[in-house]
Amino acid sequence: MKNKKPLILISNDDGIMAKGINELIKYLRPLGEIVVMAPDSPRSGMACAITSDCPVKYTLIRKEPGLFVYKCTGTPADCIKLARFAVLDREPDLVVGGINHGDNSAVNVHYSGTMGVVIEGCLSGVPSIGYSLCDHRLDANFEPTAEIIRAVAKRVLEDGLPEGICLNVNFPACEDIKGVKICRQTVGRWTHEWEQRTHPNGSDYFWLTGDFKNYEPDDEATDNWALKNGYAAITPTKIDVTAYEIMDQLKGWNL
Amino acid sequence: MKNKKPLILISNDDGIMAKGINELIKYLRPLGEIVVMAPDSPRSGMACAITSDCPVKYTLIRKEPGLFVYKCTGTPADCIKLARFAVLDREPDLVVGGINHGDNSAVNVHYSGTMGVVIEGCLSGVPSIGYSLCDHRLDANFEPTAEIIRAVAKRVLEDGLPEGICLNVNFPACEDIKGVKICRQTVGRWTHEWEQRTHPNGSDYFWLTGDFKNYEPDDEATDNWALKNGYAAITPTKIDVTAYEIMDQLKGWNL
Repeated sequence: MKNKKPLILISNDDGIMAKGINELIKYLRPLGEIVVMAPDSPRSGMACAITSDCPVKYTLIRKEPGLFVYKCTGTPADCIKLARFAVLDREPDLVVGGINHGDNSAVNVHYSGTMGVVIEGCLSGVPSIGYSLCDHRLDANFEPTAEIIRAVAKRVLEDGLPEGICLNVNFPACEDIKGVKICRQTVGRWTHEWEQRTHPNGSDYFWLTGDFKNYEPDDEATDNWALKNGYAAITPTKIDVTAYEIMDQLKGWNL
Repeated sequence: MKNKKPLILISNDDGIMAKGINELIKYLRPLGEIVVMAPDSPRSGMACAITSDCPVKYTLIRKEPGLFVYKCTGTPADCIKLARFAVLDREPDLVVGGINHGDNSAVNVHYSGTMGVVIEGCLSGVPSIGYSLCDHRLDANFEPTAEIIRAVAKRVLEDGLPEGICLNVNFPACEDIKGVKICRQTVGRWTHEWEQRTHPNGSDYFWLTGDFKNYEPDDEATDNWALKNGYAAITPTKIDVTAYEIMDQLKGWNL
């Protein structure tokens, strides 16, 4: 890792065995040196969670020219923190999360462990990209995303991204992606989120599920519209979540 | 819960046994009917994590006039989702997270389970507030925060908050809070995040720790400045994280 090739740090939330991350490694290897630090088992829906109540460990599981793969007992965000601290000998040029098995557009950005990877990279000052495919299946076909994934990563390696801004890239589950749209986060809500079951002992338990209700299905500026219409959606995402627009109003509260 | 008093849904990430949430219940009881659904053990640093790989359960542990307290096996965000689905007979008028044992200002908003509660409330369309005290101790003194907590909650119950915006309220750990500042999220980074130890068997493990490096310590508009100078910091926080400011630039990439 002492040469001049870009250093790309990869993680995900589906775990190191997932097809998505292993496809991503293949697609990005031509662009630089790859270090992977990914959870040792699935951590879907972990958002930016970090591990504070128990220690975290990592293990090297694969080493080839230009590729080091580690598995980690921590969360997706832990993986980025620990790789930077313990295994990298310089700052990465790019942090990449994915390819997620499932949609991280719209409000899903808040729950996504893939975006946890990306936000952690961005908080560390590294240009960061998350890739997700709208297909939850273990054997999802990622091949149609390869070209756009490489093009976006290449462009970010060349141009960088503004401080505090990362990219959330989602792909429709189709063979022929029509192109790329630059989008904003769709406004909508999850509904019918729980399925109630009864244990043999009589107690109730609940599975998280749900339907996403899109409040603006016809707005072509949104990431959901792009995905529904066969385009890859790039939603630039920021880590400063201050709602500047109501600060004056709140100052008027005279608390 | 059929009367006209405001319905306030409370959760946290330190778990139902924490002093902070039990103080919060005391401070808010005069304002309405209280329903608490909180994790059955600590879930610090869980951000907006949700539980998708195992079922979630809840149990009623305390019932008094105007107060129902449930413990839940899920994450802080799960608690809000499950309370709305399974125990409330109407939408809450207010969702409150806290009082957290520890600072959730600056970039900590991304890791905070307390803010996970609040963002979940906000995503559900309910005015939502997170309260945190910059003191991690189990027996921290929350009393100096009581008056401001009630004043902010009362004001939000009366005026509401704009759709998609919630409040992140942090308190300094001091006896005499000087007042309230409306702030923006401080720019800075966590550094020295891991402490490495060696197991008796020779393998290494890592504890997450760290120092927060404030990049703008003298900026009076930031939440960290307010806290360092003895003020409560109210940082309005939004759920639309789109970085609108670089959309045109990205469109120019012609991907």
